[in-house]
Amino acid sequence: MMEQTPRSLEIAQRVEDFVRGTVIPYEHDPRCGAHGPSDDLVQELRAKARAAGVLTPHILADGSHLTQVETATVLKKSGLSPLGPVAVNTMAPDEGNMFLLGKIGTAAQKARFLAPLIAGARSAFFMTEPAAEGGAGSDPSMLQTLARRDNSGWVINGRKAFITGARGASVGIVMARSTPTDAKIGATMFLVELPNPAIRIERILDTIDSSMPGGHAVVAIEDLRVTDDQVLGEVDEGFRYAQIRLAPARLSHCMRWHGAATRAQEIATAYAVKREAFGKLLIDHEGVGFMLAENLIELQQAALMIDWCAAALDAGHSGTHESSVAKVAVSEALYRVADRCVQVLGGTGVTGDTIVEQVLRETRAFRIYDGPTEVHKWSIAKGIKRAALGPQKR
Amino acid sequence: MMEQTPRSLEIAQRVEDFVRGTVIPYEHDPRCGAHGPSDDLVQELRAKARAAGVLTPHILADGSHLTQVETATVLKKSGLSPLGPVAVNTMAPDEGNMFLLGKIGTAAQKARFLAPLIAGARSAFFMTEPAAEGGAGSDPSMLQTLARRDNSGWVINGRKAFITGARGASVGIVMARSTPTDAKIGATMFLVELPNPAIRIERILDTIDSSMPGGHAVVAIEDLRVTDDQVLGEVDEGFRYAQIRLAPARLSHCMRWHGAATRAQEIATAYAVKREAFGKLLIDHEGVGFMLAENLIELQQAALMIDWCAAALDAGHSGTHESSVAKVAVSEALYRVADRCVQVLGGTGVTGDTIVEQVLRETRAFRIYDGPTEVHKWSIAKGIKRAALGPQKR
Amino acid sequence: MMEQTPRSLEIAQRVEDFVRGTVIPYEHDPRCGAHGPSDDLVQELRAKARAAGVLTPHILADGSHLTQVETATVLKKSGLSPLGPVAVNTMAPDEGNMFLLGKIGTAAQKARFLAPLIAGARSAFFMTEPAAEGGAGSDPSMLQTLARRDNSGWVINGRKAFITGARGASVGIVMARSTPTDAKIGATMFLVELPNPAIRIERILDTIDSSMPGGHAVVAIEDLRVTDDQVLGEVDEGFRYAQIRLAPARLSHCMRWHGAATRAQEIATAYAVKREAFGKLLIDHEGVGFMLAENLIELQQAALMIDWCAAALDAGHSGTHESSVAKVAVSEALYRVADRCVQVLGGTGVTGDTIVEQVLRETRAFRIYDGPTEVHKWSIAKGIKRAALGPQKR
Amino acid sequence: MMEQTPRSLEIAQRVEDFVRGTVIPYEHDPRCGAHGPSDDLVQELRAKARAAGVLTPHILADGSHLTQVETATVLKKSGLSPLGPVAVNTMAPDEGNMFLLGKIGTAAQKARFLAPLIAGARSAFFMTEPAAEGGAGSDPSMLQTLARRDNSGWVINGRKAFITGARGASVGIVMARSTPTDAKIGATMFLVELPNPAIRIERILDTIDSSMPGGHAVVAIEDLRVTDDQVLGEVDEGFRYAQIRLAPARLSHCMRWHGAATRAQEIATAYAVKREAFGKLLIDHEGVGFMLAENLIELQQAALMIDWCAAALDAGHSGTHESSVAKVAVSEALYRVADRCVQVLGGTGVTGDTIVEQVLRETRAFRIYDGPTEVHKWSIAKGIKRAALGPQKR
Repeated sequence: MMEQTPRSLEIAQRVEDFVRGTVIPYEHDPRCGAHGPSDDLVQELRAKARAAGVLTPHILADGSHLTQVETATVLKKSGLSPLGPVAVNTMAPDEGNMFLLGKIGTAAQKARFLAPLIAGARSAFFMTEPAAEGGAGSDPSMLQTLARRDNSGWVINGRKAFITGARGASVGIVMARSTPTDAKIGATMFLVELPNPAIRIERILDTIDSSMPGGHAVVAIEDLRVTDDQVLGEVDEGFRYAQIRLAPARLSHCMRWHGAATRAQEIATAYAVKREAFGKLLIDHEGVGFMLAENLIELQQAALMIDWCAAALDAGHSGTHESSVAKVAVSEALYRVADRCVQVLGGTGVTGDTIVEQVLRETRAFRIYDGPTEVHKWSIAKGIKRAALGPQKR
Repeated sequence: MMEQTPRSLEIAQRVEDFVRGTVIPYEHDPRCGAHGPSDDLVQELRAKARAAGVLTPHILADGSHLTQVETATVLKKSGLSPLGPVAVNTMAPDEGNMFLLGKIGTAAQKARFLAPLIAGARSAFFMTEPAAEGGAGSDPSMLQTLARRDNSGWVINGRKAFITGARGASVGIVMARSTPTDAKIGATMFLVELPNPAIRIERILDTIDSSMPGGHAVVAIEDLRVTDDQVLGEVDEGFRYAQIRLAPARLSHCMRWHGAATRAQEIATAYAVKREAFGKLLIDHEGVGFMLAENLIELQQAALMIDWCAAALDAGHSGTHESSVAKVAVSEALYRVADRCVQVLGGTGVTGDTIVEQVLRETRAFRIYDGPTEVHKWSIAKGIKRAALGPQKR
Repeated sequence: MMEQTPRSLEIAQRVEDFVRGTVIPYEHDPRCGAHGPSDDLVQELRAKARAAGVLTPHILADGSHLTQVETATVLKKSGLSPLGPVAVNTMAPDEGNMFLLGKIGTAAQKARFLAPLIAGARSAFFMTEPAAEGGAGSDPSMLQTLARRDNSGWVINGRKAFITGARGASVGIVMARSTPTDAKIGATMFLVELPNPAIRIERILDTIDSSMPGGHAVVAIEDLRVTDDQVLGEVDEGFRYAQIRLAPARLSHCMRWHGAATRAQEIATAYAVKREAFGKLLIDHEGVGFMLAENLIELQQAALMIDWCAAALDAGHSGTHESSVAKVAVSEALYRVADRCVQVLGGTGVTGDTIVEQVLRETRAFRIYDGPTEVHKWSIAKGIKRAALGPQKR
Repeated sequence: MMEQTPRSLEIAQRVEDFVRGTVIPYEHDPRCGAHGPSDDLVQELRAKARAAGVLTPHILADGSHLTQVETATVLKKSGLSPLGPVAVNTMAPDEGNMFLLGKIGTAAQKARFLAPLIAGARSAFFMTEPAAEGGAGSDPSMLQTLARRDNSGWVINGRKAFITGARGASVGIVMARSTPTDAKIGATMFLVELPNPAIRIERILDTIDSSMPGGHAVVAIEDLRVTDDQVLGEVDEGFRYAQIRLAPARLSHCMRWHGAATRAQEIATAYAVKREAFGKLLIDHEGVGFMLAENLIELQQAALMIDWCAAALDAGHSGTHESSVAKVAVSEALYRVADRCVQVLGGTGVTGDTIVEQVLRETRAFRIYDGPTEVHKWSIAKGIKRAALGPQKR
């Protein structure tokens, strides 16, 4: 694994202590619902994190971020509970939104939109659109939400889906087509305060995962008016900024769920060294021991992939390729880990009595969120072709 | 596939029509909760099934059952909706309980306990015990619930877990150790009317699946008194009866979930021939088309396995081996089918907007219910060894 | 499994006795080379088969064939040794060639070309072309070999690859484009006696498999002249005949290799119940026992798939779809079976000391021969699309 | 990936140039036989390597070794051809034997036994014993070869199997039980010059792999007399030394085969961007592109695992655990890579026309050599149990 810096180890240790000591006891709190922990639970947890000095631990007091390799160390620990990233403010989509605002925002935008997020407010990223209407999903060129120039700024209309955390968010980043021609597709990002009467939450999707506050919303944007100072970065550069946000955001998912899968393995192991069947401890059945061994191997591999991609980002690469590679490998591996943990636990594994069942559901969704495995493979294959034939051939 | 009889095809067609026409519209009924459809929804559906002449379709008016091969034809169709088996009364554990009562019950017991079930009441099978207390799970020899002889009959004490449908059931079959010696383990089955004050539902487990009315209960049995006429079959023969129930009950799970996975494939296919991405229909992406092809292959294989095991049962075999083989193959295959369907649907796949997400959860649990895959493999391996070395060697 | 007829069971028993008693001892004969058993070994085995009354056992004395379901019973037993199909004349490509000649040939053609094959001569099917030259492989429309009409008949030119058994064959079926227009691609099949100076074997490919006599040849066809009575069936109908041959030929591969994988499982099981490691028999290690259990499950499934496809052919279906489904499922399953057997045998598994190593190599090739898995999935996906949208949509 | 040092990059570049420029053209040399390249081919290649300054590139002129992380960089490049490690003397078992001699040998032993190996002679490691006789395989405690003390030294008797490179070797390390009591099992390593009349090669095994010069021999050791100065290290410490050799030797297999699988991927990619089927380039079929993408992911993961384990060894860990983890992950991954490359190549893939077919066979054997996957999982599971329960519990 990459060299760890003392500061990242120190922060990670504090985060781990906080998650294990303070957050885990909340896992069976009735405020953890199908659409994620309730907002008062979120605020209760964040207050404790603030008190413990572990809120937004990957952004330092001066506003600088840990490196990605350092962030991995910290975020994996925050993920040891599905509630951990919520508690310490390393959760999606906030982590990615803070990253993007830090990179692209003006000083005024940072003060207005970023500072509250670092302090514990929540945000949403309005990009994905309803599949049933042919909107943008894995293929961003299908973006349909439209931002029309008008005297005083822009007017935005469209519908969005899978808008994580929209309910309860204070800040939103809205992606819309800003060049309504067929010839070229330009998109622009707009910053908005939430709630906003022009952004109507139609419903919260019932999804297999349940860790994200606010759940995943379907949203109608109706004549949303924004002024020029709400444009994030440059007009028509939205796709480029989406790329900047994309790779680290994807990777931070890997980090957090690595922590959760590690915890699932701990739970399954603890069960296997205690529960007996057919005359011996479960772990002494090779059928069980092998599953735990496979998990250990896959967790190790996943950690290495995360660090490798993090190092590429730290070295200044866009990470588009690396994060596709890491996302496929890590999401599929963590899901298999969770699946084996369920199987080790037997009947208990499919109940909410442990978080293993949740980790299974979360990692199942993770195989689709931020690009389904198949879309990443498709993109990696394109890269292989390009490398083999030279760019001119495609 | 095995020859289908005209009567099974005719019944299956009526069941399919009913499920597609009447049951599927209920799938988004708010009374479908995390612990299964509510009892009033169950009764509403069963009333409609009764009216349509498809209630308990695998048991004929004279009390005789369809053969297992015929039953497969019917139950697969009932499973086209997760609500289907609930509606037409082919659901677990009722189907297995009715089967067992039909085989072992006295005439009086049938009138008292079986007739109401055929007419649409629900039942529970009290066998599994809490793992945390070292109770019986996959290894039945760990049975701890105790039936003590006393003047007027028996007194039963113990705790049970994963008691599907206990809440709302009218009839229960309770399995308990009846020979409290270490030397030999005998078990007896007892029939009880429910609810019963001596059978206290402590809680309903939060499980990943949600199709079974009443959910899965943890139950305390405290001084439950039963009389001799409530003994099902012979005293101390409970393990043998459990075997009789076991194979067809396992197999009927395979049948029902085969139907559900078939429906998931229909939904994924319909989506893939409509939704476009990257310039073409999803199904024209080999990454998607191959998944649907793999599903078709696995559904075909699973159907063949079901019929093969059913034919073995019809031929008078115990089916212990065959149902282990079929259960592993079918449950793992159907889960992969459901998993691919989720993946084909992308974001929509992990939402409750289609039943695919539920089918994934249900088949996940199915890989553990009625014996985890690993326990069946263990048992199959024992059989291979016995066959190779002769029975005397082990 | 499908009903077995008494005659198929009787023939299968005799074939099994012959293979186990007479053929297996030849497995380590030094005449079994990298390019298959030598011709004198083939003839020695066939003489013994003839004497034992098991030569060409699936074709009856009156020239009629067993049904496909019956054939499965017999061919699985012939496959218990990789040498078995060679010995009893149920081998590819002869089995498929005899089938096709029986279906399409004229009486005169049958006397001239089919009778010697039934009596034990060998044949070749000249269809596949070299990939490096862009010739026909999985995509038959790429056929480049050309048959030009001329006064006295036809003149054929082209190159062929993977021509199994060409060396040593007495009869050949040559597929060539007979309508040299871009508009429509017609192909015709021609019957030839071999060896023929116009058909030059350039080299025998070094392939991973080694069971087929004569190996797989690369062949140059240079001004091969044939007369009209050598046209098999009708001119320009070659693609249709290829389909007729295709499904049963594919399926007979499945049958034979099912036998071989069954034998591999026998060998691995015998080893696992004898060899000890870490204090107990290998089979008592779940790591080993589970692999044998998985093999048993997959062998069972493969047998069911074979019978299902055979029944479809017997019912008069073209079997194009069914044989694609069965070929993917069976070839992939048998390969996994062989792979696990190797693993059970440990070091011994990768040596030629048992035939398991060969079965692994043969089934590896089988995943590509007669259409790689991916081509079949592609074709199955096309069928799913057609079924969903109706034929007019594609 | 770990930081690469300038010296390792420089050496690796020279090795790569040599392998690509000089070694690859030999791949179709007829002296590459089923039992590995012939000795005169080996010597021809090594002479060229010596001239190019790349013979034994991982051992510096002063006798010191590159670090394991550096060695990985070099050995992966040497493995780009199956002949590469043979040519540059980074092959098993020599690489491991040189490592062990460098660690444990006396100065006199190094001069006598190590120096010739570094200069290009070959060696063998006599440890594994025939399974059929119950000898030591994965379970070293089953060691049967016996070294008996006698006046002038030791007399050794036993049989060995899978002795790679014994034929043609100049140096041997023989492992034998030196404490013939049941109570404790001690083993000692003895150094011998080869050939030796007391070490009789009974036969060369026909194995699925074919890269190692001399193949894998079955050997009878009959009254082999050695003197005390031929004892490597201390008497009765053989198992400990085997451990010292084990981890780096295992890992060097991973390095070399990583190179070979990388080359297979290059070959498959080159084919996929050139060959068309069904109207487009193979790589534009997702069925093919996805396989290449999966390979890219797995090659990346495997490289990270190798570096991680190498870093652990460089940090002074025994590497027993890490090399088990890496060996399972890497060998299984590289095999899947090779398997997919075969599949991409279609018919060509199962021929010797490219080295892909060989890489498949070699990596198949690799999944068993140096401990089958299952034995490593078993050992990893033991470690998990120990870590969970503390050492006293087992």
